[in-house]
Amino acid sequence: MTKKFQVVGIGNAMVDVLAHASDAFLAEAGVEKGIMQLIDMDRAVDLYARIGPAKEISGGSAANTIAGIAHLGGRTAYVGKVKDDQLGAIFAHDLRAQGAVYETPMAKRDAAQETGRCIIVVTPDGERSMNTYLGVTEFLQPSDIDEAQIADADWIYLEGYRFDGPESHEAFARAIAACKGAGGRVSLTLSDPFCVGRHRDAFRTLIQDHVDLLFCNRAEMLSMYQTEDFDAALALAAAEVGIVACTDSDNGAYILSGGVCWHAPALPTQIVDATGAGDLFAGAFLWGLTHGHDLETCGRMGCIAASEVISHIGARAEADLKALFTQEGVL
Amino acid sequence: MTKKFQVVGIGNAMVDVLAHASDAFLAEAGVEKGIMQLIDMDRAVDLYARIGPAKEISGGSAANTIAGIAHLGGRTAYVGKVKDDQLGAIFAHDLRAQGAVYETPMAKRDAAQETGRCIIVVTPDGERSMNTYLGVTEFLQPSDIDEAQIADADWIYLEGYRFDGPESHEAFARAIAACKGAGGRVSLTLSDPFCVGRHRDAFRTLIQDHVDLLFCNRAEMLSMYQTEDFDAALALAAAEVGIVACTDSDNGAYILSGGVCWHAPALPTQIVDATGAGDLFAGAFLWGLTHGHDLETCGRMGCIAASEVISHIGARAEADLKALFTQEGVL
Repeated sequence: MTKKFQVVGIGNAMVDVLAHASDAFLAEAGVEKGIMQLIDMDRAVDLYARIGPAKEISGGSAANTIAGIAHLGGRTAYVGKVKDDQLGAIFAHDLRAQGAVYETPMAKRDAAQETGRCIIVVTPDGERSMNTYLGVTEFLQPSDIDEAQIADADWIYLEGYRFDGPESHEAFARAIAACKGAGGRVSLTLSDPFCVGRHRDAFRTLIQDHVDLLFCNRAEMLSMYQTEDFDAALALAAAEVGIVACTDSDNGAYILSGGVCWHAPALPTQIVDATGAGDLFAGAFLWGLTHGHDLETCGRMGCIAASEVISHIGARAEADLKALFTQEGVL
Repeated sequence: MTKKFQVVGIGNAMVDVLAHASDAFLAEAGVEKGIMQLIDMDRAVDLYARIGPAKEISGGSAANTIAGIAHLGGRTAYVGKVKDDQLGAIFAHDLRAQGAVYETPMAKRDAAQETGRCIIVVTPDGERSMNTYLGVTEFLQPSDIDEAQIADADWIYLEGYRFDGPESHEAFARAIAACKGAGGRVSLTLSDPFCVGRHRDAFRTLIQDHVDLLFCNRAEMLSMYQTEDFDAALALAAAEVGIVACTDSDNGAYILSGGVCWHAPALPTQIVDATGAGDLFAGAFLWGLTHGHDLETCGRMGCIAASEVISHIGARAEADLKALFTQEGVL
């Protein structure tokens, strides 16, 4: 029986606040380059006051992935919490307008926290340094998981970042049970090497017990398996998970499954803003996988989508990805 | 004595909501192409639900002009009303982060209206169709005008759009009196041909009695003087106002003063989003004028700034305008 959704994603619902700044600004403002840092509201207010004019664009790692699948015409839904405020309305609008189902109840207007936002400082090299105020999205609860919706999905996609929250482990457990109980499969993204550092044991258990498809990049892979030997880490992951899809920035991506390793090359691209590269890789990969394409092709689709999203400001696809797939000969 | 501000602008404080759509969408959604339409909150909600994923970027016609002057390093301030909500905070941040002074009291959180926004639908030809929910910005009052601030400005810059509000005529009158009383000069932009249609008599009186520098485009000029003869309209305006700066889209701009007419050519540009072209023309022109450049050069600076802002999404300058002025040989 065909399920209603090909992929349901669960993650941190965020609006990105994108500003350009120099490397000197990062040093002065105490922002670590190229990674995601969690910040509180006071720091968010302080940092926002220091950055230049900004653009507000819907983001959130798994939400970017789901938006990518919807952009490609896949049947997809998203679970993540915003507040009933103006940024929450923007987040919900942009996801639904892209064609994804999004029904997570909003936190009420009197909630103490606001909709999460990520202050992203983009340096001239296109690298992004992310400063995340989680807000209400930290409080995703088991009751926010609609088990019927999850059971009606071929795949669920779990965002590693969402492990940074008190009740979300339980929410993830509930989603995994609903998914597996209905014959669905589980994918996970490790999100960030520091996120791996915070949750290595929980990720390890999850990977060994439940994960069918693991997304990560080189740094996350090395952190996960606590080694400097990339090939060894890939082999360890491949021994635990059915499919491993590991990106390696301008070296493209490695796909491992059933004892085989494929390499998908990156496309030569002028990097304007690296935000969303991994998210769109995962979105295109999952779209390919749920539309009958072989794993190598899924990897190539992922690299093409990643190259599109880093060529402009914002972490969601702007060009027609299917047209790019055709142009590159993978569709 | 050197005044604190070279230019103080007064206008509608808006956040732009930018989305791409086809011409067919405009027809289906009842949006008139290429002009600004005023809409109420219900229509704003309905139209927002219909458009695709969007970007939120600070806008507002005079605010874009003032942001341009600040970007160029001019001493400038802005007067316009937002609410103490998330969009209001975004508007205020972006203007201050650009270097402009912005101190207009925010409407309180319990105000019935929200911060104004402009849903801008950009068609593949780069043309923008604007749908404006004014919100609290309609209620700019005489008490929002800080007479000491206005008196400390070489020029004030009045946005024609702001005539669409019950108490703003009085606010403008107060600003003009404070400006002229302290030896300052008054500039006005006609904003939009339909805006001219709504306020022709009031604009006419203002122009004849107070305006030293008039900004407009061809369509606004023709509407103002109710003729199809562009040269005749230019001559009529030049007879009434010290300096007339009239843009003519890809034909550049005409500057008239003291019986002389200069033509500033437009730069060949790929139009991505026409939003802000006139605003940045005025900003660069006023910066040039207050920094000792001759009128022809001011016109060329205006055309260069306009070409920059239409080459990307959003109505504020992104590239270094001074570097462009140097490159084009006007600085």
